Amino acid sequence: MTNIKDVALHCGVAISTVSRVLNDHPDVSEETREKVLRAVQELHYIPNNSARNLVRTTSDSIALLVKGVNNPFFSKIIKAIEREITLRGYTLELHHMDTAEDELRIGAQLANDRKLIGILFLGGRFNYSPEEMALINVPSVFCTYTNTFGNLDAGSYSSVAIDDKQAARDAVETLVSLGHRKIAILTDNDSDNSISELRFQGYKDALATHSIPFDSNLVACTGTFSDMRAIYEATSKLIARDDTFTAIFAIADLMAIAAIKALNDHGKRVPENCSVVAIDGLELSEYTLPTLTTLVQPAEEMGLVCAKTIIELIEHPGKNRQFTFHTVLRPGGSVGRLNA
Amino acid sequence: MTNIKDVALHCGVAISTVSRVLNDHPDVSEETREKVLRAVQELHYIPNNSARNLVRTTSDSIALLVKGVNNPFFSKIIKAIEREITLRGYTLELHHMDTAEDELRIGAQLANDRKLIGILFLGGRFNYSPEEMALINVPSVFCTYTNTFGNLDAGSYSSVAIDDKQAARDAVETLVSLGHRKIAILTDNDSDNSISELRFQGYKDALATHSIPFDSNLVACTGTFSDMRAIYEATSKLIARDDTFTAIFAIADLMAIAAIKALNDHGKRVPENCSVVAIDGLELSEYTLPTLTTLVQPAEEMGLVCAKTIIELIEHPGKNRQFTFHTVLRPGGSVGRLNA
Repeated sequence: MTNIKDVALHCGVAISTVSRVLNDHPDVSEETREKVLRAVQELHYIPNNSARNLVRTTSDSIALLVKGVNNPFFSKIIKAIEREITLRGYTLELHHMDTAEDELRIGAQLANDRKLIGILFLGGRFNYSPEEMALINVPSVFCTYTNTFGNLDAGSYSSVAIDDKQAARDAVETLVSLGHRKIAILTDNDSDNSISELRFQGYKDALATHSIPFDSNLVACTGTFSDMRAIYEATSKLIARDDTFTAIFAIADLMAIAAIKALNDHGKRVPENCSVVAIDGLELSEYTLPTLTTLVQPAEEMGLVCAKTIIELIEHPGKNRQFTFHTVLRPGGSVGRLNA
Repeated sequence: MTNIKDVALHCGVAISTVSRVLNDHPDVSEETREKVLRAVQELHYIPNNSARNLVRTTSDSIALLVKGVNNPFFSKIIKAIEREITLRGYTLELHHMDTAEDELRIGAQLANDRKLIGILFLGGRFNYSPEEMALINVPSVFCTYTNTFGNLDAGSYSSVAIDDKQAARDAVETLVSLGHRKIAILTDNDSDNSISELRFQGYKDALATHSIPFDSNLVACTGTFSDMRAIYEATSKLIARDDTFTAIFAIADLMAIAAIKALNDHGKRVPENCSVVAIDGLELSEYTLPTLTTLVQPAEEMGLVCAKTIIELIEHPGKNRQFTFHTVLRPGGSVGRLNA
């Protein structure tokens, strides 16, 4: 059966030229176009669908790869991304993947299979290497990503994130300023090379600033950002291990909500017996009892900048940028001054 | 400039035949294919990208049109849909739209512009007419839809939903069985021809069953399913208008959470001074204080069935089906027996 190579040989042009003709690319001379179309006919070359996919060089699709379980914070970002992408005339393809999967490998394969014009990554590791980045051969933007544990050149990637370490320091500062020194942390993971580890480091930094000794007994790893039962159980174990802490820094709002429930079920009322502070700033946590004291991430703005950045990269290739957003403390009812 | 019509006229074939040749459809004879390709060449017909889109008859994309703001219940359904669609080798395009927009018109346009092979609708009116349905010329499945206010033949549409009226009746029954008779309702809308109205009717049915007079003073319309502030304010107004009610039926979990906060801020503790029951069964509301008594919708199963149904319709056209799921009461701490 005739293939694209045969057509190219027959015409004395490059395979890519045949591909350009078959895909109606503008930069082909009329003479070449006719020669190729004639050869296609004479050789009975049938560009079937899979063959066409191989020669197709583009679509109008930007994929959003979401790593990990949906949470309300991600939902807000996704909606902002989808709105801007659609408004600008592109199409958003949504793909979820499990935390165990590798986002760069999956992204590279998707870009190839789907002829994507861009990829947005949401959630993931913070330790990409230049070799890994080279897998992705379309414009990409990493949302909620910082290259803290990797070694990428600033010019080689685009990202949108908060300063996770600073947000964690601010959270702990809030507790210290109210007299707390026995402060536990509720984190997904303390060494995941990602958000959790960074916030864990911010927690330790803040303790060190105030000469508060770090106590590994006060670290509760949940293994999840959104499985409320697992978070509840991790908090219960923490209480069983050492119930002398007077405050908890939970690295996400949903974690704080499950923790408050666990504390309550163990006879510790928030904020009377234990203060709780978190990072996220979900609207929801303004309506829980008690309301949550939390550092607000500007989810909508982050999603919008993420979408604008990928479109900018697609339309005017080349200039990578990293955006860092600030979090703002939203006072709630979950913290109180420590009674000495 | 030559167009597809000229090619068809020149060859003495239908426009759709030219389209089939240009899109490598299998059911064209070799003779016709050659005749068309020759005409394409002789007439210098250039199927540019937009023209190609007009003649392209297919893609592998199924669109998910989400009406209204994201909420955790929708997130769970969306994830289940996305997983199954991707697993089966299709692509999911995500599109959000505002509640003011018309889902069928937007869906029809998308199907055409994007050459979709199927559309899933999530959220929307419950009153489609056969004329409106005729706009959608690709397989479609309506998720969380029942044709209660429309006049579609059962054979003409596919849907996945719970029995909203029954769920509302069950919710109110739960309150009545605990001695409550002054039962308020918190609903998005009492006449939206959709979920809200149906649950409102279920509420009225249950009152009637127990000879409890309907009192319009006890109806609080929020105008939203997910804007916590608006729900909080609607509840506050309800309390200001008539605070003699001893229970609230909120038609969604998020509404109940905001209502409990409003009740609390007005000195009414839940469940001591007021019982609250809802519909949804979010995992989250098992971890609020108090935990929520709610009728659980099987979100994951609904999403899965929705995806399986659209794929079945795409692969084996013709057989429409309507699925109705049952909700199950999940007892929580937000209801109590009325002290006579």
